Formats: sequence, structure tokens, C-alpha cells
Amino acid sequence: MDKILRINMSGTKGPTIKTEPLGDYTGLGGRAMTSTIVAKEVSPTCHALSAENKLVISPGILSGTAAAMSGRISVGCKSPLTGGIKESNSGGQPSQMLARLGYAAIILEGKPGNDHLYKVVINKDGATIAPADELKMLGNYDVVEKMKAAHGEKIACISIGPAGEMKMGAASIAFTDMELRPTRHAGRGGVGAVMGAKGVKVIVVDDAGTQMRQGKNPEKFKEANKAFVAGLRQHPVTGKGMAAYGTNVLTNVINEAGGYPTRNFKTGQFEGAAKIGGEALAKLENERGGEGSATNGCHRGCVVRCSGTFYDKNGQYVTKQPEYETVWAHGGHCGIDDLDAIAQMDRLEDDFGLDTIEMGVTLGVAMDAGLAKFGDAKAAIKLIKEVGQGTPLGRILGSGAAVTGKVFGVERVPVVKGQAMPAYDPRAVKGIGVTYATSTMGADHTAGYAVTANVLGVGGTVNALKPEGQVELSRNLQVATAAVDATGMCIFVTFATLDIPEAFQALLDLMESCTGQPMTAEKFIDFGKRILKLEREFNIAAGFTKSHDRLPEYFKKESLTPHKVVFDVKDQELDQVFNF
Amino acid sequence: MDKILRINMSGTKGPTIKTEPLGDYTGLGGRAMTSTIVAKEVSPTCHALSAENKLVISPGILSGTAAAMSGRISVGCKSPLTGGIKESNSGGQPSQMLARLGYAAIILEGKPGNDHLYKVVINKDGATIAPADELKMLGNYDVVEKMKAAHGEKIACISIGPAGEMKMGAASIAFTDMELRPTRHAGRGGVGAVMGAKGVKVIVVDDAGTQMRQGKNPEKFKEANKAFVAGLRQHPVTGKGMAAYGTNVLTNVINEAGGYPTRNFKTGQFEGAAKIGGEALAKLENERGGEGSATNGCHRGCVVRCSGTFYDKNGQYVTKQPEYETVWAHGGHCGIDDLDAIAQMDRLEDDFGLDTIEMGVTLGVAMDAGLAKFGDAKAAIKLIKEVGQGTPLGRILGSGAAVTGKVFGVERVPVVKGQAMPAYDPRAVKGIGVTYATSTMGADHTAGYAVTANVLGVGGTVNALKPEGQVELSRNLQVATAAVDATGMCIFVTFATLDIPEAFQALLDLMESCTGQPMTAEKFIDFGKRILKLEREFNIAAGFTKSHDRLPEYFKKESLTPHKVVFDVKDQELDQVFNF
Repeated sequence: MDKILRINMSGTKGPTIKTEPLGDYTGLGGRAMTSTIVAKEVSPTCHALSAENKLVISPGILSGTAAAMSGRISVGCKSPLTGGIKESNSGGQPSQMLARLGYAAIILEGKPGNDHLYKVVINKDGATIAPADELKMLGNYDVVEKMKAAHGEKIACISIGPAGEMKMGAASIAFTDMELRPTRHAGRGGVGAVMGAKGVKVIVVDDAGTQMRQGKNPEKFKEANKAFVAGLRQHPVTGKGMAAYGTNVLTNVINEAGGYPTRNFKTGQFEGAAKIGGEALAKLENERGGEGSATNGCHRGCVVRCSGTFYDKNGQYVTKQPEYETVWAHGGHCGIDDLDAIAQMDRLEDDFGLDTIEMGVTLGVAMDAGLAKFGDAKAAIKLIKEVGQGTPLGRILGSGAAVTGKVFGVERVPVVKGQAMPAYDPRAVKGIGVTYATSTMGADHTAGYAVTANVLGVGGTVNALKPEGQVELSRNLQVATAAVDATGMCIFVTFATLDIPEAFQALLDLMESCTGQPMTAEKFIDFGKRILKLEREFNIAAGFTKSHDRLPEYFKKESLTPHKVVFDVKDQELDQVFNF
Repeated sequence: MDKILRINMSGTKGPTIKTEPLGDYTGLGGRAMTSTIVAKEVSPTCHALSAENKLVISPGILSGTAAAMSGRISVGCKSPLTGGIKESNSGGQPSQMLARLGYAAIILEGKPGNDHLYKVVINKDGATIAPADELKMLGNYDVVEKMKAAHGEKIACISIGPAGEMKMGAASIAFTDMELRPTRHAGRGGVGAVMGAKGVKVIVVDDAGTQMRQGKNPEKFKEANKAFVAGLRQHPVTGKGMAAYGTNVLTNVINEAGGYPTRNFKTGQFEGAAKIGGEALAKLENERGGEGSATNGCHRGCVVRCSGTFYDKNGQYVTKQPEYETVWAHGGHCGIDDLDAIAQMDRLEDDFGLDTIEMGVTLGVAMDAGLAKFGDAKAAIKLIKEVGQGTPLGRILGSGAAVTGKVFGVERVPVVKGQAMPAYDPRAVKGIGVTYATSTMGADHTAGYAVTANVLGVGGTVNALKPEGQVELSRNLQVATAAVDATGMCIFVTFATLDIPEAFQALLDLMESCTGQPMTAEKFIDFGKRILKLEREFNIAAGFTKSHDRLPEYFKKESLTPHKVVFDVKDQELDQVFNF
């Protein structure tokens, strides 16, 4: 990974491509790369859909090596949804492949002066860009089929669906998985709209003729990876729970804990949880005679394999095994307890190129606006189809929960910095509430997953229902996560690195032996802090203040059943999250 | 004016009304009253449609007296459109009548726990509130007809149309004029949505049995009023231009100056300007055999009488003589040069209860989004009807230009703090650009009308095309305007008070002899500064920073014909507007 691919869409004679040395960006990857480039090259006050914004795609520092779980790829830009900096990362195959091709980042900049939609092809011979107007308004599944037909089955694709072309605030960027399906998404913050504004429909990556990246110290690297994998296998979450049921194992856990946001965050438990939880999902998948639950990874080198495939009653492929947050957003949040309906919505959103969290939350807000009844899966599916069609109503919903709330005059809108809250009620899981409020990303569970110590007993224990200790918990996790998001490691490695000292040391050793630069726990934490500081400075320059580091007021006033709790972490405490 | 009417909509047994002494609010009126109450009683971070927000309606300090032009009324709240503090003022009869009934302010607070829509009736015997569900979704014209039928022809009405009930960001509050028509609006900032969220459809005001307010020093007051009126008559703008053609006399003036924003701010001159300017409008009105142009005031005591009535070809009433900004927003901004179409749109928006500036600008943005062609009046009328009907598309447009731009992925959206820019291009009238950028209200020409010295040669001369001197000009005007907005005086008095020292002294004398409190030029300016500071502090607490005191970036980059100018007042200079 010694070069950057910079594509300027503004050229009067069409886009121009150049390959640059890393320069100031040497040693970076993933979130460290995207946030550094955005902070350095993008004006914080620019319009997110303007030529001034840039879309940066960057494999993690360890991507393309033999390190287990190192296939995450980061997408960065100024977010059209939050108005702040955005890093949204995804699994799938492109990270490993781009890294093996030597690209530490792709930067899309400028804006085409014409109506063409472009296709980028990257392989061992370099990169090309050409109009591909025949792809206009195709869904991600169709795009991938066309790319397979044109470029063979060994490629990976990075693409947008109609939502991205329509520049919707909920538009995602799809990354193909090991089965070459567009099921992995950089979902959050409207990154797909920025790719749409750049006029790029798909980036085809073909790593034929390349080799796995070798670390600077291959022997040590191999040892470290072995220890790392042992840690992952040893930890109960990654070794057992997820490996059996996937992320959706959380449905019953969070529901039991009373932190499962139900019907647009009105209660903390859903009577239909058991019908849509990981256990029920696994049973269904096994009954339908597919591979069964939690049998797949999303990229080569995954050892947790938390994913699977969802088939319909007739054995037809529908979508990948839906994640916990996807199941929740379309399930409990909308009062829906039908896994087939949920899987269908997941499929539609993957195809249209939509963030399943933002869309599911938006549907719940739409239900509060009277557009459908809670529990009405048919109506919910119809609404999602409107988004794909780009009807006026679909445009509203595709703009996300905050805009939908505004347009329909709804007061109860669970967003922070314009981004929808994920699947954990901040009143009953207060550590995640601190993360929602203060993250540079807007409400985002992955930015500092305090569910660990709050609910799962991972990384210690902090009582989820009390305000004490939540700020420290969230701060530490936000810092560590920023660093992990730079490595290319899947966030699920943190269960092991939090609980098993050897696993954490192995991660540091992987970094050190890969890059040849010394890496200690202290350096790793400093690295995370530097990333967060960059992001926070961007946001401040974009106009964010501490008043944006707050949950909507109703979380402080409306008591949540069953625990009868409000969000009571004090504002002054929230303002201490970034006191480093 | 010795009391406040406070109506709490939250009561479990229905709304409660109390009359309170002025207390801390003694001596205040108009914008000074609304901004002080909002700053003191409303949490800057609350949701604008929540029970925590309050809607404050306050006649000016001189309202209800014999002072000429003293019939403005202020509406204040946290704005659903900007997210900051809002004061939007209106002409019409209610100000004088409320003042004569002794009410210095009406405060609507809380939120009904039911679906009722309420009617408030205020007369010499006090105030009552009762459900009036039969008014649901009626237009303002129908509401007023029903109120006339129930309460006689001597009332005045303050009401919302369907837009306010639907809590749209562009929803206005209508105030009836001397002909008891709902043609005067507190238009800006979505104040109608807040009234809608409070569940109040109409406030009927009946001042039968009351008397004109007497000043503390009636003799001096009478003298001052005489001098004041003389000044207004002597000044060319209020004595001649407006008196002949109304505010629409500006169309040709601003177009000549190259600052007439055309087709969503793409050029500074409109080829159809002469067809829709004040002169053409007057000719049409005179031809159609009505009263002719500029024959009416909006309230008793007006001596400028800048208004008139617009009749259709068949002599049927359509609307009041449309104001310059209304003509521009639906005219040049949309490429439409048909006065009949413009008048029809004005009528529809008055009836639905919509801000004509926000809506016209939104139509231009919608045209850039491809929803209609520039110049297509029929399509524009159809779009406005969608707003009144509350279709999904109508909901989008009714949410204003910023939301419409977001929903349709349009980059060119002329808003500041979420509020649409009025009828003066900030590149060619740079003083107004400074006001747009920095006003506590969002883009608002009335907040500091630098068109005076920039174009009209009133209050000195500052070259409209150069950045020099604009910040000082805008600052002085913003300060003076804040004070004038507290007096109840129509903003048009400032032409005379800026140019004629005797007229300014007469205004100070009116204040002093009315209130019995000493009033000097210095005190008046201090009064304005205090109001602005309150407002700015509220906005800062609501999350505004200097990055919000900026125009959209394209105004700094795209050159405007015919003068080939960009907005080049430096950011650091903009940050000096509030350096007092």
C-alpha cells in the first residue's frame, strides 16, 4: 500500500486519474486515512454534495495481509446527513483486494459537469474510468451482475444504488461479500449520496496477479496472528455467541436487559423479540435447508464467521443473514415480528443502496407520523419501495429520520447530529447514550460500543442504568475504536482485545510486525486520540458545539419501561468526553 | 398595556388561561417583548414543536396609541425553520386592538394532550378558549369568514391555515387587515407551525368598548406625532415612491442595480422585470377599475398607505396588492413574468398560511431540482396547491427551501440558518449580504435593510458592489431595526428617520411622551443592542457558531452578472458585526 488513486471528476474533458505517492499520508489506513484526508483537504463549511467535498475510500492498515479479520474498509467525507465529518466502514472483499493492489486510498473529488455516470476499473495494470450510463438507476444487485458479466467472477465491487444517485441522506455504498453479492455496506451518514454527487456508480476491483501483503517482520507477524486468532476463538462472544447465531443473538439479550427500543423508542422491551431473535433466525435458516446460521464470513480471513444466508420458504436466496441492528430497526422499532418481512426489507435496502439503520428508524418515525401502523410489515415494505422509486414520499424517507420528522412535524425523532440512533435505548444502556451524544459521527453504536461493559460484561462491568462511569467507559471505547477502525480490523475483535491481554498484545504485534514501526498500548491509544481530535476539530469548524453533543430532550424526560429510567448523564459530564 | 395573557395548552382538563401583571417584562413590547420572554422562558435546545417552546405575540410599545404607523405586532418563539430564536412581525389590525385591550403579550405554552383545535376570543371582558374542531384544515379566508359570522365585522383575527396545522417550516401566522382579510402575515421562520403545535387555530380580537391608548404626556405626544408624520410625507420613498406604487416599486430599481436574483440566484437581472414591477402593477390595477395602486394602509393610523387590492380580469378580488418580495419570489426568482399568476400564488399562500418569501424561493429550488421549468407559472401554482393539500411533495415544499434542497439533493440552495434569502442578491447588494449572513433571524432583509445606503441613497451611500463599509452599515441597521421592531412602528419609518433628523427626534419624543421614560438616541441604540444580544445568546446556546454566520459557499465563487461580482466580505469581517 504505497500509493493513492486520485480521481478528479471536474475535468472539462472528463474525469482525470492520477496515482500519487503517499506523502503526508504515509503509514495511515482506514479511518485514520479517511479522516486525515478529509480534515486536510475538505472545507468544513462546504456543501456536502458540492465539488469541494471528497469521498475517500481506504483499506485498513492491516488489510491485504494474512491477519485474521483485517478486511474492513473505511469511507470518509463530509456527511450530507450530519454536516460533520464521516467515517463509515464496511466488510466485504474490496478492502483486501485494494490493499493487495497497493492502494492505501481512493480519493474521488470534484464534480462532473455533465450528466454521465461513471465506472472505475482498478486492476494490476492501473485504473481507468469511463461513462457507464447503462447502469443508471440500477439496483446494486443488477450492477454487480453486469460487472460479473463484463469482468468475470473474481472481482469485487464498490457501488451505489438508486438512493446514491438520487443523493439521499440515507444512501449507502455497497461492498461485495465473498459470494460477490452487494450485502456489505458503508451505511451511515449518506456516503452513497456523496459518491452519487461525484457521478461514480461503481468501482470494480480485480486483484488477479497480486499477492498477499507481507509484513516487515513476517515471522513475528505469523506468530502474532496465531495468538490473535486464539484469543478470538477463546472469547465467549466471538468464539460462541456470534459464531452460533450471528449478531442477531443480541435481540434477546438486549430485550432482556430492557434496552430494546420498541415502536420508535417508546418502551424498552418488545413482546415479539423471541420471534425475530438470533435463535429464531437460526432455527428458520436451518429448517429451510441452507447452510444454516452463522456459517459465513464477509471477507477472506474472517475466523468469527458471524454471517449466513437467508432463504425464503421456497429456498430462494433473499439476502445475507440480517444483522442485529437491521432486524431491530425493521423489527422491534417498527413493531414488526416477521423475519421474512424483515429479510425482504433488508434485501430491498441493500439493493437500493440504503443504510438499514437509518431507514428502519425512519420507518418508525413515519409510523408515528401516521403513514403506516406500527406492526404493518406490508405498509413498511411499500414505503421502502417508494424510496427506491424516488417518489416524493420516497425522497422524504430516503433523506433519513431527521428530515422525515421535520417534513411531517414529528417531535419524537431519535437522532443525534441528524443521524438515527441504533438498536440500544440510551436510557437503559447509558454508556451507549454517551457515545450517541458525543461521537463525532452522530448517533453511532460502533463509535464506542459501551454495550460491552453495560450489558455483556465484556471489558469490566458498568451498571447500565446508572449515570456513574459511563463517560469514562464511552471515552475509552471511542478512543480505542478510532484506532481499531484504522487497522482494518473488524470491530468484533475488541471483545477479545478488551478481555484477553494476550489478544490485545497480539493486535499490537500484528501492527508492529506489519509496519515495522514500534507499537505499544500507549501509542495505540494516542493514535486513536489523534484521529478523534482531527474529527472533532473538523466538526467544530463545521459549526458543531456542545449543544450538538446532546440527546433529544425527550430522552431526559420520558421514563422508559421496564426500568423506569431516563437519560440522566449530566450535560457537564458529556462535555468531559473529549477532555484529553 | 399592563398585562400578559398566558394560555397553557397542557392542562389535563384542557387549556388554562391566566392574566398576569407585566413584572419583569414591564416597559417592553414588540420584538423586545417576544425575544425577552423567549430568551428567559424557552430552553434553546428544546424541539421547536415541543411543549417546551412558547409562542409569544406582542404589540409594539406604541401600538394602540394615535402614533402614525404604530400597528406592527411581533411573534416570537424558537423557530422550527432555523432552530434559533425568531421574531417575525406583521401589520394588520390586531396590534392596535390588542394594545387597546391592554395586553402587552399573549403567551401560548405547553401542548394539548388531545387532538382538539382551539379558538381563543379576547375582548374587553377577558379571554376565553374553547375547542373549534369545525375549523380544522380550513384556509385563513374561510376561518375569517366564520369568525365574522360568529363575532361580527369589527373583530380582527390572528390565524393559521392548513400549513400551520401540518406544522410546516414555511407556515405563517395571518393577521387581518383593515378590510378584515387575512393578508398580513408574520411569515418568516415557521411561526405558524408553532401555533399549530400549540393547537390554536385562531385568536379573535374584539376591542369594542376600549379607547385609544393615551401617552403619559399627551400634549408632547401629539406634537411629536405631527412632526413624525411630516417627516414621513417629506421623504421621497414614503412620500412618493411607495405612496404611488407600493413596495413593488423596487422591482425595476433592484433590477436596474443588477441585484435582482433571477432563476434561483443565477443572474442579477430579469428580462421580464418591467412586466411585473410596481409601475406595471399600478397600470393593471388602475385599468381594472378598482381603487388603483397604493391606496390602502394595513392598519388604522398608517399614513404611507403602500398597499392596494388586486382584482382579476373580471373585477373579482384576488389578494391584496402583492409586495415586492412576494412578486420577486414567484416572479424573477422563478422566471415568471405574469402578474395574474403571481397574485394567484400570493392568494393561495395567504390562504394556506405560508410565508411567500420562503415558498417562492422553494419553488425556484424545486425548479432547479427539475420539478418544474423556470417560467412555468401553471406548474408553480400546481406545486403550491400540493402544499395546501399536504401531499408528500407538498409537505416537502412546505418545509421550505433548505429541506427541499436536502430532499432532492440540490446544491444551490439560497438559505442562511435554514431560512430562504429574500429579493436582493448578496453579491450585488453586499450590505444586505452581511445582514443575511449575520442576522439572528437567518436570511432576512428586514433585519438590517442595507438596501438603503447600498441602492436607494437613503442614510448615506455605501457602494453596493464593494466589501468596504458593509459590516458597519449592516451592524448599525440591525441595531436600529431591533429597537424599531420593539416600538410597533412599521419598518418603512426608517427611511425618514435615517435621513431627516427631525423625524428621528420625533420618534424618540413619541416613545418618551408615551412611556414617560426618558428616550435619547443613545438609549434607543442601547435598547436595540440589548435585544440583539439576548437573541444572539439564545442562538449560541442553541448551537450556532460563527460558521452559521456565512452565506452558502457558491455566493463566494460564482460571479453574478451583470456586475461580475462575488460576495467578498471576509469571514473575519462578518465576525465583527456583533462586536458591541
